[in-house]
Amino acid sequence: MLIVKKFGGSSVADKDKIFNVARRCMEDYEKGHQVVVVLSAMGKTTDGLIAKAHEIDPNPPKRELDMLLVTGEQVSVSLMAMAFHVLGVPAISLNAAQVAMRTTSAYGTAKLKRINTERIRHELENRKIVIITGFQGINKYEDMTTLGRGGSDTTAVALAAALHADACEIYTDVDGVYTADPHLVPNARKLSEVSYDEMLEFASLGAKVLHNRSVEMAKKYGVQLVVLSSLTRAEGTVVKEGAKMERMLVSGVAVDKNTARISVIGVKNEPGIAFKIFNILARNHVNVDIIIQSVGREDRKDISFTVARTDLLEAMTLLNENKAAITAQDITCEEGVAKVSIIGAGMLSNPGVAAKMFEALYSANVNIKMIATSEIRITVLIDEADANRAVRTVHDAFDLAD
Amino acid sequence: MLIVKKFGGSSVADKDKIFNVARRCMEDYEKGHQVVVVLSAMGKTTDGLIAKAHEIDPNPPKRELDMLLVTGEQVSVSLMAMAFHVLGVPAISLNAAQVAMRTTSAYGTAKLKRINTERIRHELENRKIVIITGFQGINKYEDMTTLGRGGSDTTAVALAAALHADACEIYTDVDGVYTADPHLVPNARKLSEVSYDEMLEFASLGAKVLHNRSVEMAKKYGVQLVVLSSLTRAEGTVVKEGAKMERMLVSGVAVDKNTARISVIGVKNEPGIAFKIFNILARNHVNVDIIIQSVGREDRKDISFTVARTDLLEAMTLLNENKAAITAQDITCEEGVAKVSIIGAGMLSNPGVAAKMFEALYSANVNIKMIATSEIRITVLIDEADANRAVRTVHDAFDLAD
Repeated sequence: MLIVKKFGGSSVADKDKIFNVARRCMEDYEKGHQVVVVLSAMGKTTDGLIAKAHEIDPNPPKRELDMLLVTGEQVSVSLMAMAFHVLGVPAISLNAAQVAMRTTSAYGTAKLKRINTERIRHELENRKIVIITGFQGINKYEDMTTLGRGGSDTTAVALAAALHADACEIYTDVDGVYTADPHLVPNARKLSEVSYDEMLEFASLGAKVLHNRSVEMAKKYGVQLVVLSSLTRAEGTVVKEGAKMERMLVSGVAVDKNTARISVIGVKNEPGIAFKIFNILARNHVNVDIIIQSVGREDRKDISFTVARTDLLEAMTLLNENKAAITAQDITCEEGVAKVSIIGAGMLSNPGVAAKMFEALYSANVNIKMIATSEIRITVLIDEADANRAVRTVHDAFDLAD
Repeated sequence: MLIVKKFGGSSVADKDKIFNVARRCMEDYEKGHQVVVVLSAMGKTTDGLIAKAHEIDPNPPKRELDMLLVTGEQVSVSLMAMAFHVLGVPAISLNAAQVAMRTTSAYGTAKLKRINTERIRHELENRKIVIITGFQGINKYEDMTTLGRGGSDTTAVALAAALHADACEIYTDVDGVYTADPHLVPNARKLSEVSYDEMLEFASLGAKVLHNRSVEMAKKYGVQLVVLSSLTRAEGTVVKEGAKMERMLVSGVAVDKNTARISVIGVKNEPGIAFKIFNILARNHVNVDIIIQSVGREDRKDISFTVARTDLLEAMTLLNENKAAITAQDITCEEGVAKVSIIGAGMLSNPGVAAKMFEALYSANVNIKMIATSEIRITVLIDEADANRAVRTVHDAFDLAD
């Protein structure tokens, strides 16, 4: 078997954890499997590097920030190779340039395009464990790029697809996908299986188990994922097509506090304005989430939407620079908000689900600011201060507990 | 003009120092010059990375250690690019892979083979300051290599040669080459010029101003160097062919405490033994310095030599493993020794020089353990405890003070 194993930053945060990971990988290697290990930067390394950059330059060029950040994973993979050396297992570390992990040129948010697997296959055939830097790539200028936060998951899935791996294991600090964040909801239950689509909703809504793009890619290439803990031997959650629904309308509740609301007030009620607003943001790689447009009153209307809180400053700057072009009378924003979502395949075939969620929030005295739905998700935007209470209330209302 | 400027780790150790370097480079840029900046890792970064490696693996594979160490310079160059961005100067950082800084495969002690200057020229023509990682390269396997300590000097000289630069400025924490270490000999005098050969002796004998291989390369390609301080505006020392000798027999006194003595006792007095000993060491990249062979008594003789103290453990291990093959009866070593040298072109045409040095040491009650000479240098091995006193005594004896 060829197994791709991805370990996040907290799984390699110090010497003991590095050896713990090495020993787990060694078990599969000693069974005769080929093992590819994808690593993130150790612990809070990436945050530390960003802080270092901001100390010099509050608004660093994205190319140079990527050049800086990619050092984090390179440290992880070389130290991991040393741990394997101590354990007597042949291993080799490779960075994105060495495996020609080609991406688009959008620094900070690059997308993987193709991987040259020749070097990896060569090292695997020599019975080496191959340790690869997650999160990073190289673009057509031979410059280093990063895939955005959580991009190591995407690296692992892309490698699993390119190498036609038999398994792709994503190790995190939780041991699977839960009906809600166990820190928030102590009696949350672990799901044994979820579908790609459900996982996508979980991922995009702040359940920090798997990176969204990694799930999209896994779905596209049919890579079956397992989410496990690097610290326990507990069975994880399998993410695959057509996972059984466990006869639940709702499989979980997710919360996302990295969100902010922007309202563009009093824009002209004419075609093309919404396009202009969202085009400005898209061109600058600011992702927009829930969008609500007021019913036009006379010649003016308001457009509200959410962005990641980390993108708020950039989004506000862009919109204010283009205030005249988008015909806005005012642009306002609010930071202290959170998204709470229920997720479950097929829930919308049962119209009672939304009402039940809103009722639970009403009974807990939580005010709903915005609502958005997809086929398998209902999301509300509420005050951040209400978020934890809202998650517990909704989790109870749908009897998701153990 | 095209100017290559190299700054060592202490010159880029923190934010203020990074901006200081950026501003100095900016001055030349604004005069219309093309500027290439070569940087080492910040402050004690490399030592920190080595400590991190040793925490995991006391004897890390050299390939993986290089993979780890090269991150140090990559951090420096990307942060420097950000500093230029803040100052409004277009700049771009490039690592060894991006400029195809090809080296031999000897990890940790790789030698530069060739540089592809295309990308650098392209960026310079776009009026960018180009910031390049010193100390590192890439070998035929596309793996990262390092040039050994002080290798950034070599990177700078190699770039100056490959780019046919008009000047190559090496910035250090001293403002030139002195007749002795000013920390040790307060009235030491700065030399305005030295020849490549003198500089080679200074460099190889512990005056940590310029890396030996960088001077050899500068001599080979006729690259004129200037050694300057990044902190002052003092005129530096020019290193060039046929520098004027300032009518001095001796231009300086150097001390090297990174040295240890090894004695191979009672080897068979037959041809090939010395070859065997030094071949074992050379194959493992252990450099040997002063060598003394006792006059053979009957069928046995002793061979003593010095190695860098950092290579002592490896050298002793290698020799003990091959004790039978080299017919040694015993192998001993001593760590607490130092080399003190006087350097000056043409000194050996005056036989009084050596005698004067030995007389000075005798009058200071310093015992001489070994002696070695070259055309422009006399070196003695003494107890480390005597080293500082010996330097001052010899410096006085030759009237080198200001």
